[in-house]
Amino acid sequence: MAAINAIRDSDVVIGYNTYVNLISDLINGKEVVRSRMHEEVMRARLAIEKALDGHVVSLVSGGDPQVYGLASLVLELLNKEGGLDLRPTIIPGVTAALAAAARLGAPLNMDFAVINLSNLLVNDEEIMMRVKAAAGGDFVIALYNLISKDVLVKAMNLISTFRSASTPVGIVRNAYRDGEFVLTTNLGNWMRYLEAVDMNTTLIIGNSRTYVYRGS
Amino acid sequence: MAAINAIRDSDVVIGYNTYVNLISDLINGKEVVRSRMHEEVMRARLAIEKALDGHVVSLVSGGDPQVYGLASLVLELLNKEGGLDLRPTIIPGVTAALAAAARLGAPLNMDFAVINLSNLLVNDEEIMMRVKAAAGGDFVIALYNLISKDVLVKAMNLISTFRSASTPVGIVRNAYRDGEFVLTTNLGNWMRYLEAVDMNTTLIIGNSRTYVYRGS
Repeated sequence: MAAINAIRDSDVVIGYNTYVNLISDLINGKEVVRSRMHEEVMRARLAIEKALDGHVVSLVSGGDPQVYGLASLVLELLNKEGGLDLRPTIIPGVTAALAAAARLGAPLNMDFAVINLSNLLVNDEEIMMRVKAAAGGDFVIALYNLISKDVLVKAMNLISTFRSASTPVGIVRNAYRDGEFVLTTNLGNWMRYLEAVDMNTTLIIGNSRTYVYRGS
Repeated sequence: MAAINAIRDSDVVIGYNTYVNLISDLINGKEVVRSRMHEEVMRARLAIEKALDGHVVSLVSGGDPQVYGLASLVLELLNKEGGLDLRPTIIPGVTAALAAAARLGAPLNMDFAVINLSNLLVNDEEIMMRVKAAAGGDFVIALYNLISKDVLVKAMNLISTFRSASTPVGIVRNAYRDGEFVLTTNLGNWMRYLEAVDMNTTLIIGNSRTYVYRGS
């Protein structure tokens, strides 16, 4: 509700195409800027500019705007490039791990770790260091930003050195959106479904206590 | 919105007092069961019973219903005690780490780990094993269920062996609710605010890259 009210109160709405389309019923009569993927810095700068011009601006994200999202980028730009009089409000949301897990049962009922597998801004060594720590610490693990299948396979192989082949693995694509795909498999068999994995997919790997109930 | 619609469509609403009071405008004319803390199993059983009687039941949680919440308890009871024809829908929510982090800036923009510090169902060794793994893996850490100040101090001391005294620590109580309290301090000084910590508090400890901007 906070997000809906914020968008209603805005006169400018900026966001990645896909997300702006999901709220088309809320943005009638507003100035709307739809941008493409990989234009995050442009979007954040434009939001700041419009706000400095006196507009009330909503910068729309999927999931939660902090988790590998635009919120920290906006704060960073304000910090480095000025605009410190602006006090952006961050409205939390349902991050992909929670949405995916709700479709799978409730695997996030135990301690969990969220790890970004994109190696665009972080190097492979740092990613694998995190995966190893989470696997060794028996965390339920949610993997985000599955851009590189090589990195994913490396991460899953590393997790497999800590956990048995029967450990449940959930694969969820487009949770709560068109084209939703939900599958439960395990560490021994997950590779069969590698083709189902894309940028909109979250993988959840159970820990030593996770169990599958009624096959779903 | 999914949660609001689900509650509207229910004829029975069950929940912990505090959370049911937050949705009083939605539950007019429904059968409402308000229960006290520590009656989780009773609440889950009652929800199943009422659903088996043919009612549409909402079991209301704070935050996300999976994260140390009732969703997995319901599934477990269905699995063990029958009622498998029921197919409960889990509606994800904003878990405390995300709500707290939104108030602090956006510290969850990097890989993070969520750890339950309650030692009612998990022993201290397992808790500290997780804390150590998360601290060693340079995860941003969110600490939940701060029932025991002894366990909290032990956990923070352990984290301090991995991170410098200047590492940012956020303390957030009752995020987005009455009596909200938000404070940014660091690993060297956080103990001064130990009295502010209660069951409704989430602690967020930054990693090696977290920084404080404009003192908030």
